[in-house]
Amino acid sequence: MGEFDLIARYFKRPARRAALGVGDDCALLQPSPGTQLAISSDMLVAGRHFFAAVNPRTLGHKALAVNLSDLAACGAQPLAFTLALSLPGVDEAWLAAFSAGLFALADAHDCELIGGDTTAGPLNICITVFGEVPVVNRQSQALLRSGAQPGDDLYVSGTLGDARLALDALLGKISVSADVLAQARVRLECPTPRVALGLALRGIANAAIDVSDGLIGDLGHILECSAVGAELNADCAASLIATSACLERAGAKFGNELTQDQRRTLTLCGGDDYELLFTAPPSQRSAVDAAAQTSQTPVTRIGRIEAETGLRLVDGQGARLPPAYASFDHFA
Amino acid sequence: MGEFDLIARYFKRPARRAALGVGDDCALLQPSPGTQLAISSDMLVAGRHFFAAVNPRTLGHKALAVNLSDLAACGAQPLAFTLALSLPGVDEAWLAAFSAGLFALADAHDCELIGGDTTAGPLNICITVFGEVPVVNRQSQALLRSGAQPGDDLYVSGTLGDARLALDALLGKISVSADVLAQARVRLECPTPRVALGLALRGIANAAIDVSDGLIGDLGHILECSAVGAELNADCAASLIATSACLERAGAKFGNELTQDQRRTLTLCGGDDYELLFTAPPSQRSAVDAAAQTSQTPVTRIGRIEAETGLRLVDGQGARLPPAYASFDHFA
Repeated sequence: MGEFDLIARYFKRPARRAALGVGDDCALLQPSPGTQLAISSDMLVAGRHFFAAVNPRTLGHKALAVNLSDLAACGAQPLAFTLALSLPGVDEAWLAAFSAGLFALADAHDCELIGGDTTAGPLNICITVFGEVPVVNRQSQALLRSGAQPGDDLYVSGTLGDARLALDALLGKISVSADVLAQARVRLECPTPRVALGLALRGIANAAIDVSDGLIGDLGHILECSAVGAELNADCAASLIATSACLERAGAKFGNELTQDQRRTLTLCGGDDYELLFTAPPSQRSAVDAAAQTSQTPVTRIGRIEAETGLRLVDGQGARLPPAYASFDHFA
Repeated sequence: MGEFDLIARYFKRPARRAALGVGDDCALLQPSPGTQLAISSDMLVAGRHFFAAVNPRTLGHKALAVNLSDLAACGAQPLAFTLALSLPGVDEAWLAAFSAGLFALADAHDCELIGGDTTAGPLNICITVFGEVPVVNRQSQALLRSGAQPGDDLYVSGTLGDARLALDALLGKISVSADVLAQARVRLECPTPRVALGLALRGIANAAIDVSDGLIGDLGHILECSAVGAELNADCAASLIATSACLERAGAKFGNELTQDQRRTLTLCGGDDYELLFTAPPSQRSAVDAAAQTSQTPVTRIGRIEAETGLRLVDGQGARLPPAYASFDHFA
């Protein structure tokens, strides 16, 4: 199968919202009047972001999910995406599964594939995603990293640490039972972009980011961009491992329950969570609860923004913890 | 140097036209009222699209040039781009040269880097580019592959075949003198996107594409999308090798002048030319000449569009040639 047959068979669909989709030199997209286009790009490299042997259906899902997560963190409504794909060769079963996973998530968000590139080379997936954000009275409604205010509550959606738990288990760094791994692995391989929550938080949250490199590292971006500091309850975060109960059963059985330090490390520095970390003033607490309900996404208050720069970790009793946790850096 | 320092040092610049540039979850772009956004994505893989040891400055140029060439083929005005970069490691001299080449071309087209991704992995460069096309009376002014009409003249800009000549010489498949290689190599490594010509052809050309996979293959896309055929003067195309005179001197010297068949193959199937191939009605000949002059880009009439589908190659005397030339396909 040649390059153009491959595109036609697995990736070309009739244009819906786009003025022109796959198949010309450019795609043509006309954002609605009174909106800005939110744009983000993520590249996934085999052996770095995923195991080459990963299920291609979940890989198709994840490649788009991590990009939709960036739109969510901006409060943008997904519109469309481009896909650039470097493949070692044409494997039809792989392509069928990959494109099925990709389009299942794309369809769930009414997000259209409008173009891209296909080439031979080491397996590499680069998606660029486009969303819309309203502009009201010349003011963008986008949620930015730079809007956090001293006094804001600090929230995180969903659960933390399970993706890293699965990764460490798959790498043999930690030993867990098969059912714990199965549960945690879904979070690693099939993350849920919090698009509905991001949309519901427009006008409520002051700042937002998605947790991809780890809670502490990504919080650091909010603090730096907003020129503020924060106090973070490490044990509150540490309680957000979804596989927690499952782990305790397994721990009792295998005698390898997670230590407090392991829990803290997984949740604070894990990465690959794709949850929303956001700040909102205390006056918006009931609005945040309502946004969580509307979007059917649990949120947990885990700290507060302070004028004093830097991050202060405290335990469940409010006692200071040493700043011993680092986030992921591709080149560190 | 970590990932975020790398971005800050080599790729972050203050936002100009974008509402928000590098450094948040998404970039924010607000296209002008009454325009469509033209979007294209190209991925360049080391060892596939370029030699890993290529000069990083020209690589930075080429990575953006091939994307700008897609905007040119749509008649779009460049606005902005995202860059996703997978690097085996942090090589500061390489990054300085790569970003200098990239930004020199970006600045020449007032095209702004607004976001992207940086990761560790095999060297891979994925750029997604954004341009604007006016919409007049609800009619997009974009130049598409699908607009060719029977009776249209067929034109190509600039020169053909030199990039492939350089590639074949570098691969040891053909032997040329050092000065021929030096001249041809500029075309391979530092192509000129024909943005000004693409803009000048709006309202004049009926269809356009850029020549990346080879003249015949890319013409095939126009013919297929427009449901027409063409007669192409192979010897007229074969005369468009820029290094032609240079080659003849070298050929006389080394006794290895290019054969007629080599010339035809290089120009018809070479690829990596990044010239514009376009059609326009004969009534627009003086307008095409004027567009060529305004944009300071030579154009040559090399054939015509016909109602009968398929491609018919003729020689300089109008005699039919066998259809023996294929274009580049990554997976064929």
